[in-house]
Amino acid sequence: MSELDAVRESVLDRVKPGPDERERLEATSGRLVDRVHEALSDLAMDPDIEDDVDIVRVGSTARGTWLAGDRDIDLFVRFPTDLPRSELERYGLAIGHAVLPDGHEEYAEHPYVKGTVDGFEVDLVPCYAVSDATEIRSAVDRTPFHDAYLSERLTPTLAEEVLLAKRFLKGIGAYGSDLKTRGFSGYLTELLVVEFGGFAPLLRAAADWSPPITIDPETHAATAFDDPLVVIDPTDPERNVAAVCSAENLARVQHHARDLLETPRTEVFFPPDREPLDSDGVRDHLRRRGTTPVAVVFEAPSLVDDQLWPQLRKSRSGIVRALEDHGFPVLRSTAMVEDGSETDPRRAVLFVELLVETLPSIARHLGPPVAVREHAEGFYAAYADEERPPYGPFLEGDRYVLERDREVTSAAEFLESDAIFDVGLGTHVADALSQRDVLVGAETATLADGFGPELRSYFDPRP
Amino acid sequence: MSELDAVRESVLDRVKPGPDERERLEATSGRLVDRVHEALSDLAMDPDIEDDVDIVRVGSTARGTWLAGDRDIDLFVRFPTDLPRSELERYGLAIGHAVLPDGHEEYAEHPYVKGTVDGFEVDLVPCYAVSDATEIRSAVDRTPFHDAYLSERLTPTLAEEVLLAKRFLKGIGAYGSDLKTRGFSGYLTELLVVEFGGFAPLLRAAADWSPPITIDPETHAATAFDDPLVVIDPTDPERNVAAVCSAENLARVQHHARDLLETPRTEVFFPPDREPLDSDGVRDHLRRRGTTPVAVVFEAPSLVDDQLWPQLRKSRSGIVRALEDHGFPVLRSTAMVEDGSETDPRRAVLFVELLVETLPSIARHLGPPVAVREHAEGFYAAYADEERPPYGPFLEGDRYVLERDREVTSAAEFLESDAIFDVGLGTHVADALSQRDVLVGAETATLADGFGPELRSYFDPRP
Repeated sequence: MSELDAVRESVLDRVKPGPDERERLEATSGRLVDRVHEALSDLAMDPDIEDDVDIVRVGSTARGTWLAGDRDIDLFVRFPTDLPRSELERYGLAIGHAVLPDGHEEYAEHPYVKGTVDGFEVDLVPCYAVSDATEIRSAVDRTPFHDAYLSERLTPTLAEEVLLAKRFLKGIGAYGSDLKTRGFSGYLTELLVVEFGGFAPLLRAAADWSPPITIDPETHAATAFDDPLVVIDPTDPERNVAAVCSAENLARVQHHARDLLETPRTEVFFPPDREPLDSDGVRDHLRRRGTTPVAVVFEAPSLVDDQLWPQLRKSRSGIVRALEDHGFPVLRSTAMVEDGSETDPRRAVLFVELLVETLPSIARHLGPPVAVREHAEGFYAAYADEERPPYGPFLEGDRYVLERDREVTSAAEFLESDAIFDVGLGTHVADALSQRDVLVGAETATLADGFGPELRSYFDPRP
Repeated sequence: MSELDAVRESVLDRVKPGPDERERLEATSGRLVDRVHEALSDLAMDPDIEDDVDIVRVGSTARGTWLAGDRDIDLFVRFPTDLPRSELERYGLAIGHAVLPDGHEEYAEHPYVKGTVDGFEVDLVPCYAVSDATEIRSAVDRTPFHDAYLSERLTPTLAEEVLLAKRFLKGIGAYGSDLKTRGFSGYLTELLVVEFGGFAPLLRAAADWSPPITIDPETHAATAFDDPLVVIDPTDPERNVAAVCSAENLARVQHHARDLLETPRTEVFFPPDREPLDSDGVRDHLRRRGTTPVAVVFEAPSLVDDQLWPQLRKSRSGIVRALEDHGFPVLRSTAMVEDGSETDPRRAVLFVELLVETLPSIARHLGPPVAVREHAEGFYAAYADEERPPYGPFLEGDRYVLERDREVTSAAEFLESDAIFDVGLGTHVADALSQRDVLVGAETATLADGFGPELRSYFDPRP
């Protein structure tokens, strides 16, 4: 048995659901399906419609590709396409509340009910029974097609390989297609394992990838994508299943694939928890680094993470770009959000680590070449009299040069000023920033209270 | 009379030598020529050779293009080309010392005697009477051809125009083909005035130039040049008379040509002397600017200026490049040499004004894209173990990034260390730097004692 096979067995021991878990899952799922049928009858809808409704179990627990302990049951109730959308939503919610009396409503493209039954997280989602995945009315309509495609191809062995791949991606932090992670979705992972015929072959392929990579299981691509990883949906030739996956997570997979092939070990799948960094730790790192961080702290707008994170990312890069444009060299930056529910108040931080936080009063400004007469004369005239800057215009080589007052001499002052609202923030972040604190240098150590894990990752970064 | 004509008259009044000065010059020149003839006879050389020797008055005083008060008399003694070089030098020096008993020897490509007679600076230069300027044995052989070319073409009016052009170039600081100034030589100035038919036409042409500019009075260019200004020597198709002229001085001429045409005035020709900057002035400017200068002060190597200045320029740019490579943003820099004779000890300064003088302990280092497997694996392996830098390798986007210890965290310490000798200094400057002081920030104010005029130009720069 190769080293990698030994790791494989050891990981599977921990992630493959045991017979008990499987039985309980099957029992609960069965009961739930029965209850959905009952609820359907109770609705007393048009019998023609009721005849056309079916119930599909989807997701990893339906396909036997769930990791032990993950306890999600996804039930999709498919309605005929001639049912108006408002009816579909009404029926969907009625069934949901009947089956999951303690459940609550959530919103994807339309509302559905989520609740807990026997310790399982249950999603009860209404959708349309479209005849083909390309005809979907909303994203959820696609799920049953994904499920069918994979179920047809997943042998028991491949299902085990999926477990390894998922655990690997979780271990390295690249699992999840949410917009905070921007990694690999469950569907994408399963498709890749099916496509390459297992976890190890997927690793070996990934180790050698030279992005952009296109994988098209059904060779039916109908659109070009410029994402680093393109996996054409076998059920929809115009969709990239990996559209959300960032270049960094793709690189992460490549790095760890090589690393694991070189030195097989289980730690990659189950990395030890990292100690949150405390304020002394932050101060030590800042002393060691000699840099000056500035941090904008504010209450995160109450948005779901998938709306919040793109705005935080946009805001962070807007601030970084503005600071660099003003001459402040940025070493690194990050955005952080406090743990907690998306609906509770929680703090967010835009953290920018600078090489220098203050700059001289004057800045060099390069004018036109003297030879470009019209431009040069205009430039010189503009600065020669009233608007005369502190120094210049003078000549350097064949051009005019000015040294004029720098607009911003302190990065922290810039972030405290209204100029922060001109840097291209996310809309809701801009609103939230009307109340903000700006911390500078060692003051940022106080962030350890609330952001210890994020600061650990920031100050002890790993691939 | 146009405004420019009025300025012309007013300037000519001041720069055109009066009848007295002309008479005295003629009288002295005549006496000197006679004395050269006498000295030649006294040498008792082979009569065949002596018959072939002639004496030529060259330079601006010979052509009537000297500025009032400039009192250089250049006498060239031309020997036949079959005279061995050692003989030429021996005869040349003998004549020189006979005619200028108080004179001293100087060296161009070969030695000659320089002395003072009746208040005139006299150069007595031996050269070969080659038949064509393209056949010269040393640069001085060319001078009589230049003189003949110009003398043929300079009408009395054009000679006046030359005076205006020379005074203009002196006024703006662009006159002189020495390697400190890198401006316009007298010969170049006269050629340009002849070519454009006067000072005002030259100004109008220059105002519109879009370098590189090529002017070829005899349309016989035989070589391509990549200088910003190319004026093909009418006596040598392979020579650019303006080879020394810097892009900055060309731009300077363009700037002031436009300015003078727009607002004719005599101040451009006779700019008032500028007050040297004192140490309080330096400190005021530094406070106003908020920058941190570093200055390397040392004893200038005893070289003639034409050897010293290229080395200073090379040393300055080597230091600037090294500081920028180490991450220190340079606002501006200059080299300065104390007034005084080239043979006396005098101080020199390499002055670099920085936005920041100290930088954090760590520096960001961008590694290869993870996808470039061989390179990426080598990079990661190199830093993963013993050589592990303080931070990383980690991922940013599709690449590895390190944060490692910065080699240089203080610009002044860098200049004080032996690393300064690796930046590509001029040879003699490198030797001279073995004894150096490094001044930082306000300490540089002490340089006002000795470099006041240079510091005035630096801190109050003009086009």
